[in-house]
Amino acid sequence: MDMLWSGWGDPAKAAPLPDTVIGLLRDLLGVTPREGAAASLDAIAVPGTPLTDETLRALTHCLGDPAHVRTDAESRIRHTRGKSTPDLLRIRAGEVDDVPAAVLLPGSHDEVLALLRVCADHGVAAVPFGGGTSVVGGLAPERARFVALDLRRLDGLLAVDEVSRTATLQPGLRAPRAEALLNERGFTLGHFPQSYEWASIGGFAAARSSGQASAGYGRFDEMVLGLTVATPEGTWETGRAPRSAAGPDLRQLLLGSEGAFGVITSVTVRVRPLPETRVYEGWRFPSFEAGTAALRRLAQDGPRPTVLRLSDETETFIGLAHPDRIGSADAPAAAGCMAIAGYEGTAVEVADRRARAREVLLAAGGECVGEEPGERWAHGRYNAPYLRDALLDAGAFAETLETAAFWSALPGLYEGVRQALTTTLSDAGTPPLVMCHVSHVYENGASLYFTVVSAQGDDPVAHWAPAKRAANDAILAAGGTISHHHGVGTDHRDWYAREAGPLGVRALQAVKAELDPTGVLNPGILIPLPAPRLPH
Amino acid sequence: MDMLWSGWGDPAKAAPLPDTVIGLLRDLLGVTPREGAAASLDAIAVPGTPLTDETLRALTHCLGDPAHVRTDAESRIRHTRGKSTPDLLRIRAGEVDDVPAAVLLPGSHDEVLALLRVCADHGVAAVPFGGGTSVVGGLAPERARFVALDLRRLDGLLAVDEVSRTATLQPGLRAPRAEALLNERGFTLGHFPQSYEWASIGGFAAARSSGQASAGYGRFDEMVLGLTVATPEGTWETGRAPRSAAGPDLRQLLLGSEGAFGVITSVTVRVRPLPETRVYEGWRFPSFEAGTAALRRLAQDGPRPTVLRLSDETETFIGLAHPDRIGSADAPAAAGCMAIAGYEGTAVEVADRRARAREVLLAAGGECVGEEPGERWAHGRYNAPYLRDALLDAGAFAETLETAAFWSALPGLYEGVRQALTTTLSDAGTPPLVMCHVSHVYENGASLYFTVVSAQGDDPVAHWAPAKRAANDAILAAGGTISHHHGVGTDHRDWYAREAGPLGVRALQAVKAELDPTGVLNPGILIPLPAPRLPH
Repeated sequence: MDMLWSGWGDPAKAAPLPDTVIGLLRDLLGVTPREGAAASLDAIAVPGTPLTDETLRALTHCLGDPAHVRTDAESRIRHTRGKSTPDLLRIRAGEVDDVPAAVLLPGSHDEVLALLRVCADHGVAAVPFGGGTSVVGGLAPERARFVALDLRRLDGLLAVDEVSRTATLQPGLRAPRAEALLNERGFTLGHFPQSYEWASIGGFAAARSSGQASAGYGRFDEMVLGLTVATPEGTWETGRAPRSAAGPDLRQLLLGSEGAFGVITSVTVRVRPLPETRVYEGWRFPSFEAGTAALRRLAQDGPRPTVLRLSDETETFIGLAHPDRIGSADAPAAAGCMAIAGYEGTAVEVADRRARAREVLLAAGGECVGEEPGERWAHGRYNAPYLRDALLDAGAFAETLETAAFWSALPGLYEGVRQALTTTLSDAGTPPLVMCHVSHVYENGASLYFTVVSAQGDDPVAHWAPAKRAANDAILAAGGTISHHHGVGTDHRDWYAREAGPLGVRALQAVKAELDPTGVLNPGILIPLPAPRLPH
Repeated sequence: MDMLWSGWGDPAKAAPLPDTVIGLLRDLLGVTPREGAAASLDAIAVPGTPLTDETLRALTHCLGDPAHVRTDAESRIRHTRGKSTPDLLRIRAGEVDDVPAAVLLPGSHDEVLALLRVCADHGVAAVPFGGGTSVVGGLAPERARFVALDLRRLDGLLAVDEVSRTATLQPGLRAPRAEALLNERGFTLGHFPQSYEWASIGGFAAARSSGQASAGYGRFDEMVLGLTVATPEGTWETGRAPRSAAGPDLRQLLLGSEGAFGVITSVTVRVRPLPETRVYEGWRFPSFEAGTAALRRLAQDGPRPTVLRLSDETETFIGLAHPDRIGSADAPAAAGCMAIAGYEGTAVEVADRRARAREVLLAAGGECVGEEPGERWAHGRYNAPYLRDALLDAGAFAETLETAAFWSALPGLYEGVRQALTTTLSDAGTPPLVMCHVSHVYENGASLYFTVVSAQGDDPVAHWAPAKRAANDAILAAGGTISHHHGVGTDHRDWYAREAGPLGVRALQAVKAELDPTGVLNPGILIPLPAPRLPH
């Protein structure tokens, strides 16, 4: 099934906001329904492909079957940009200036290699396309002519090593299918980001994804043991051992490279036994500060839950994850800050770990509020993007952004980003609601995930841009990283360049120039295009 | 204190082999005492420095004090090569063809930066020198004129963040001093490689070290959260958050870079609370296969000891770690394979983890033989290099090498390397004793550490070279990495190039060319010098 072209996910799952929420949005944020519905897909005027017949012939030759080279309007619209709120607003408005020239469906590593050579020879950029779920501009390169390499045909589980507990997956496998294939063998990947239902294995690697169960299963980059990448200069394979002292860890140069160095064509990951038991429970803390301190205790001294997250006062009060209850009589009491702690594993191990964590959380001032909030969170964990669509439909603006920092920098980061968003949007006449949760924890720090809701203003895309810039500046000023798990893309690129520093950018540009001398791989997505070199 | 110039460690700790061991070496391996003692330091003829007065003036200008620019013979001999067995044999023979032109002692990051600019301008290579403990040729660049940058003056603990549990250390801090400074603050780094008593923080990072307690504290590369590096092109700082999705993890490009991309001038690491309790115990398994399976159980399903290692039948029988007992009446019964499991942490946590690990080890066929072997191991854990010196003195040859692979590849790797070493050395007329232990475990694989003892042959350096090459070939053929924790250096460089693949090597060369355009940073240590580029 294809994702909804103008929004998120399964079109059948879209649901309008309850009237109570529409009323709250109006009363709290001044949100009023916008005029005019989204453009229909048929009504969008897509210009003909800019590719020459010669280029199309060469690309088709790589793939054998002309059905795998698509230049029809619908295919191209469906591969235009990603799923950030500005992306959705623009596609709904029928803006297709970033439409790919063609959509290519390679069926093997060798076909990807061949396509990249044609792209290099013909000066056509190539954008790897997995689930199409980027929310940071990872699919809109700085090049007039580009093709989308849709990897959906590369969707196999290639190998499972039960002794080493590893599996080799193709990049176009969507996460639920990968999980199902591994479950059949008794294993799980344990990677459940909010994009889970649509995102692909290759995308997880390329954007350095992190899932909601990262406290237990680790980040995706910690799961990856080997990668095969197709580049215009040939094939690159990495990963002979779990860990090595043989030079820099080259896997880590490809993870997070966002297609700028090559197209990932297989990923070897660690897998774990399918858990016998999964249990999620809610904990209430008197304040975000107290809750954060409790999470830090568990992250540093254990025992570590499999899932661990903490909403701030505003997010707890709004109860964003269950909008059907907002404002209703059965809304849960929502004072303080709600945390979710989840445990997965064998029944014995889970019971033991949960009991020990309980002691720590109680000692840190937490109150256990039972499994109901945990189960509710688990049930609705992939629904927030649907809610965003409904908010957009109702005339509200909703967007998310995220970062991470060391524990000691977290309070300043939290305040800095909230203030940047609130000030900028209030100054623009649309005072926002800014919510936050701690989404991932580490021994030495944690991530913060912000959700912003406001009125759309007259021009919603332009209305958001200064707020996003201010938030990015605030993140760097407070010592945070420009992204903890969404990635860089064009949206974060300039801030990433500041974070990586001049020598970091030059090192990455040098790698790119070596692997992609004609600059056709996702140009401008990860790193600025190189400036002309000055004489040394 | 300076390390023994012609061997390992504290000269006062050197001790000859007991007569029983000398007898065993003679009877088992045909080892006979060699004629002639090691050259004395004074007797080695070191040519005058090849640096021009102009270069020396420029270098001295960077450091202010002429005492920090040393060109005397002793300083230069003490910075010649590292501590591999061939290194020791060559320096004992008075071979000083790899002697540095000068030894420089910078006292700050800015002084290192200034020195590198002078080196670049004057065409002099620069070799960062920490503890000088490389056993893979990490200190002998492929350049006629080079200086050693001895980082001993950069030996401060710059900062401790008790909330985030991080510490920032200078590169010239030796491990025991770093540990003492952290202990004063209630923390430990938990990094205890065999080189611990002499190795430096910068060296751990540059060579991607792994310590004996890696099962509990992780590898050094997992501890590193930030790095500052001086390059001829300026300063590079990395690490704003514990984990990030902002592009490739650039820390991982500098870890393991062995001075080829820059000189590490500060390292921010995670630290952990100083453990209340440390307990080490011995376990006996009927075979290496059974013991390896038991270790895998703990590595994959837990609970994870802090230290976990397993000697094969030969190493267990020989009891290499306590030569004073070899052949004596109180030698422990040495059938099967001995494992050491160690636990560090709070008393409660250690008791719990130890009890649960005990169940797993018993179920896997292990027999607990108590704390005595564990304490003996812990007591002698840094002594093997002294034993090597004694073996060399007695006319034997002793060397180590190590690798890692996924669990399923481990049996083939074990057999392949043993066979390569045994065949090559037997064919050369010096049948060896080859011992092995599993030294580090991961969920998906483990490392193997081999010790080889044989007669020296007529020309010990030439006698070892084909065996080392055969072992390296066998490692790659069996799917292992060319080094799990010793690093690359000149000894492994050509095999590393095969492991990294042509595109991996080109990517690294491109990074090097960008950061070190004149190629003065440890040239030829990590990666082959770039070949002239062919037309594309």
